[in-house]
Amino acid sequence: MKTTIDNVHDYMQATGAKARVAAYILSRAETALKDKALLCIADLLIETKDHLQAENRKDLIAAKEKGLAPALVDRLALNDERINSMSEGLYQIASLADPIGALSDMNYRPSGIQVGRMRVPLGVIGIIYESRPNVTVDAAALCLKSGNATILRGGSEAIHSNRAIAACIQEGLLAVGLPSDCVQVIETTDRAAVGALLQLKDSVDVIIPRGGKGLIERVTKESLIPVIKHLDGICHVYIDDDADLEKAVRVAYNSKTQRYGTCNTMETLLISETVASTVLPRLADQYKTEGVELRGCPQTQKIISDCIPATDKDWGEEYLAAILSIKVVKGLDEAIGHINQFSSQHTDSIVTQDYSKARRFIREVDSSSVMVNASTRFSDGFEYGLGAEIGISTDKLHARGPVGLEGLTSLKYVVFGDGHIRQ
Amino acid sequence: MKTTIDNVHDYMQATGAKARVAAYILSRAETALKDKALLCIADLLIETKDHLQAENRKDLIAAKEKGLAPALVDRLALNDERINSMSEGLYQIASLADPIGALSDMNYRPSGIQVGRMRVPLGVIGIIYESRPNVTVDAAALCLKSGNATILRGGSEAIHSNRAIAACIQEGLLAVGLPSDCVQVIETTDRAAVGALLQLKDSVDVIIPRGGKGLIERVTKESLIPVIKHLDGICHVYIDDDADLEKAVRVAYNSKTQRYGTCNTMETLLISETVASTVLPRLADQYKTEGVELRGCPQTQKIISDCIPATDKDWGEEYLAAILSIKVVKGLDEAIGHINQFSSQHTDSIVTQDYSKARRFIREVDSSSVMVNASTRFSDGFEYGLGAEIGISTDKLHARGPVGLEGLTSLKYVVFGDGHIRQ
Repeated sequence: MKTTIDNVHDYMQATGAKARVAAYILSRAETALKDKALLCIADLLIETKDHLQAENRKDLIAAKEKGLAPALVDRLALNDERINSMSEGLYQIASLADPIGALSDMNYRPSGIQVGRMRVPLGVIGIIYESRPNVTVDAAALCLKSGNATILRGGSEAIHSNRAIAACIQEGLLAVGLPSDCVQVIETTDRAAVGALLQLKDSVDVIIPRGGKGLIERVTKESLIPVIKHLDGICHVYIDDDADLEKAVRVAYNSKTQRYGTCNTMETLLISETVASTVLPRLADQYKTEGVELRGCPQTQKIISDCIPATDKDWGEEYLAAILSIKVVKGLDEAIGHINQFSSQHTDSIVTQDYSKARRFIREVDSSSVMVNASTRFSDGFEYGLGAEIGISTDKLHARGPVGLEGLTSLKYVVFGDGHIRQ
Repeated sequence: MKTTIDNVHDYMQATGAKARVAAYILSRAETALKDKALLCIADLLIETKDHLQAENRKDLIAAKEKGLAPALVDRLALNDERINSMSEGLYQIASLADPIGALSDMNYRPSGIQVGRMRVPLGVIGIIYESRPNVTVDAAALCLKSGNATILRGGSEAIHSNRAIAACIQEGLLAVGLPSDCVQVIETTDRAAVGALLQLKDSVDVIIPRGGKGLIERVTKESLIPVIKHLDGICHVYIDDDADLEKAVRVAYNSKTQRYGTCNTMETLLISETVASTVLPRLADQYKTEGVELRGCPQTQKIISDCIPATDKDWGEEYLAAILSIKVVKGLDEAIGHINQFSSQHTDSIVTQDYSKARRFIREVDSSSVMVNASTRFSDGFEYGLGAEIGISTDKLHARGPVGLEGLTSLKYVVFGDGHIRQ
């Protein structure tokens, strides 16, 4: 059954208005009620698995008919494992501490008033994402726990799956007495709906796009609403003169090969000239065993045989593939300079045993995650202990790095007086 | 001497590029160096007072010739008292703790890595403001202490004063060895410079407009850069059934009359019907003594003689004047409903002795400052202990309420490992 929507603009306006009303109710909801809703949804996903998979098959068939690449079709599939994992994710989010309403730093001032801050929801969050239907559950759950209403706009190729998942979510909300409008899935695949969503500045407080660069750029350009975004993942590892070489090899190997398609995968390896001839041949052997294509600066080419010359374009490239660019640098200053010029301000790591250089690296590298002697692959909400993440922000305002529950909240000031007035 | 700038767009591009370079140096500057620069500037303002006042006179003469309202001309004047106060402000900011580089919450994770966050500058901040030349010093000093480079665009009517102040600031920066580009004042009064500034998304990280509603709206609409803004100050006091009536009268009187033209002045008084006939006559007498014009709902009009009828427009009006709108409500629910509908989400206060109602008010009122038994006039960076403020944000993302040093910073993740890799 396909919903026909004649006037997308009016439909989106109405969606925004309903979200605003629901957000107000949700912002006051007790912790236990929100957790109960999350567990209810988790159980419903398992109970209605057959239905979810039947709806998902419609998307899979359409995707194959449209000739979608097998990797993309695979990302769309809701197999048993993925449904179980969505359900487990909800249990995890329910077990996290509720950030909302927490009061902090309530200090007395010379005037006699007591001032501090309370953590509050942002309000209504619009999430625009591509393909993977599990995002529907993850995003809705994180927003729900943090007291925010959501408007979800998934990829058109997952519309049947997303609708079926949304039905579970809304049934779970209603079961505990929360408005089903706390989580709304846009019912049309019309592209104009995205444009209309980005204009709803009175009813939507923040937009979070998740997907390819084209999507992020379109959203940033068109949105009248503040955007929390993750643009690129051009991550670096710098192997310093004073690196422990065993740690260097381990970290540089893991940062590239543990997974290729993730945003926290290393794309460029920087290495100090004093250790390059010792470390690079060993690393090159390991990379080649894994089939990683190496593209090097002239000095790298002298050290490693059959290394492709890197062009200037390589330093600004997010490969998301078994390709690595390598540059030999004079030392820490050049490494920091290169990173601050070419990094996407996502995650950058130094391998060194030198205290002062480690200290300088973490202060001077302007990225959302800076690391010492650790794999860039750790840059992740679960690994950081946030419990879950809605994405990794490469913005500077509001939320930087992995965005968990706290990134979906704000702080307001609270003042307690006892009839105090200003003199 | 008037600087002629042929190509405003190129000029602004160059200004942005210079700011970016300076910001990088400033982000690494030691606390003592930044403080020394602040004190140096403070002393230079006093030493060059005669020159500042001579330049200021040019602005004052031009303003009078242009027929500017006397109140506006007065705001422009740099008398001895104002110069002293600018200088003292710098001493105060120098004495505040440096937020930059502070590490917090460094916890060990099950993987063995240690994860926490470091406070870092935002980078380059563009500040667009009207008339008062003291903003030039305040804004530059807060940004300097928090490690941010600034591009300042003041009102054209204060151009000579602003240039003279900027010269002091730059001399102070150079005296301690910091780049003078850490603080740049736009050298042209061409309005196109504002438009060009708002496009510099690669070299400016955030825009802070300070001024009237027209300016804020223009900036929000045109900017490609995130904006921290303060739109309106429609503040409320709600006198509850369970209010201590002495406190109620004191808080309601102070919130309106302590100053009329500030954004944290109460514009609408809400009062529960059970206490209206007791409290309103007493308050009305006090307001009338001060010459405050009262505009009331029908019930208010029955209680107070010679009260002007309030129209629907009054509830959404920021008077910034000796005018107060008054509404009698049924109780807490109607008060919260009215506030969340009409408040500008700035500052709202309840007067009550009831524990549960105070608790509900602070949780459910969605404003940047919520108060219990305190005057709305306390909503201010100095009163809250921030030391100084660059403005009060009515936004929800990033900074809410008075924005001090912390609001001009961000947090990045720091990870310490010892050769740790992801499994």
